[in-house]
Amino acid sequence: LAPLVMVAHDRMIARWLERTATPEYDVIDGPGNPVIIAGFGRVGQIVARVLRMCGIAFTAIEVNYQQVDFVRRYGSKIYFGDATRLDLLQSAKAGEAKLFVLAIDDVEASLKTAALVRQHFPELPILARARNRAHYFQLRDLGIRMIYRETFLSSVAVAQQALLNLGFTAAAAERAITLFRKHDEELIEIQHAVHHDEEQLIRNSQQATEQLKSLFEADTIKLLDQDPEPAKTDPGT
Amino acid sequence: LAPLVMVAHDRMIARWLERTATPEYDVIDGPGNPVIIAGFGRVGQIVARVLRMCGIAFTAIEVNYQQVDFVRRYGSKIYFGDATRLDLLQSAKAGEAKLFVLAIDDVEASLKTAALVRQHFPELPILARARNRAHYFQLRDLGIRMIYRETFLSSVAVAQQALLNLGFTAAAAERAITLFRKHDEELIEIQHAVHHDEEQLIRNSQQATEQLKSLFEADTIKLLDQDPEPAKTDPGT
Repeated sequence: LAPLVMVAHDRMIARWLERTATPEYDVIDGPGNPVIIAGFGRVGQIVARVLRMCGIAFTAIEVNYQQVDFVRRYGSKIYFGDATRLDLLQSAKAGEAKLFVLAIDDVEASLKTAALVRQHFPELPILARARNRAHYFQLRDLGIRMIYRETFLSSVAVAQQALLNLGFTAAAAERAITLFRKHDEELIEIQHAVHHDEEQLIRNSQQATEQLKSLFEADTIKLLDQDPEPAKTDPGT
Repeated sequence: LAPLVMVAHDRMIARWLERTATPEYDVIDGPGNPVIIAGFGRVGQIVARVLRMCGIAFTAIEVNYQQVDFVRRYGSKIYFGDATRLDLLQSAKAGEAKLFVLAIDDVEASLKTAALVRQHFPELPILARARNRAHYFQLRDLGIRMIYRETFLSSVAVAQQALLNLGFTAAAAERAITLFRKHDEELIEIQHAVHHDEEQLIRNSQQATEQLKSLFEADTIKLLDQDPEPAKTDPGT
């Protein structure tokens, strides 16, 4: 791909967007939908597609303008604006929703929105996307329990496929991965219980490597020792 | 978190890193490991932890310096450098490896590395992380078949949890999600077969919204119609 062509094209699109008036979606119209999706990126779009295929209408809030007004055809709505603003959440009828899907990729905006929803709509369950462990801890500190790290499950699937390629049987790879997930999901809760040192959260990149080091140290269970039938080949040799 | 404190702290770390000489890891020493992991970020680290817990040594290549030399304790190696460089792949003994895990987050570097490995180590299987559908298509064009979209599985898990929160039974939610995954994985292969219009790949953000629109249009199967027992409550009302 030629970067210059892309830059030129992005500018062309930007100019086109300036000419075309952004439609006004921030109007309060009709009843609310059962689900609000904040953030209509890679995660929010998959959730939206599943909901639509199950016949469930949603209201999406997205800060970047995209031409996704076609979702209205499916009984859904989209608001272009900042989900960290209370008035937009009110327009989206957060008070009537059954579920708030927090799918914003930006960590700061995600936490701001989470705090706002917790404060003004304390009864509304939040289902959240987290960028990494640090983001996970901060969402947990806000009282959110349903949190999915955005790359975790695909990473685990890559690891499972790696084991298969190295000669593990399907059953052995499945068992190793199930144990790892259980172990890591317990570990993140234990770490959350002890992480309450504000100082630590600030030590950004240094903290990330310290964290990985302690993860390697905490990863003491041997996945293969718990495997009743040995893998066909010994992948370590 | 106060941004100024973070900026100041990042600078402090940068200065500290300048003072501390980066250790020389780019030496060819000992035999190669069965797995090479290019990119030691969120995905590469999970793969590394699973491999280590299964007793499989790996060689990681990471462009950003991190203090992860502790992996050597576990029989693994780390090279700080650019995986798009052939000499580094040769140092990492790519020719002896059984599997190349392409876990680089940057799309351009990922594609460059993939092309290099395909050209110089055509027998080495590549297991790849993709950022999105466009990246997936480009990796497929290089002949790679094992590709995992980095946020796909967590997104699907978020959708599944959403269905449960809306009153779906565990069985109904599971069925809907299994159908959606199958449908989307078939769809991406069909789309790949027809996407061969170079022009299209360039039309970046515009293309992304067009793609989503066509996904909504292609999502014609009704997940619930195929459900023999109805969900306890009708979440659409």
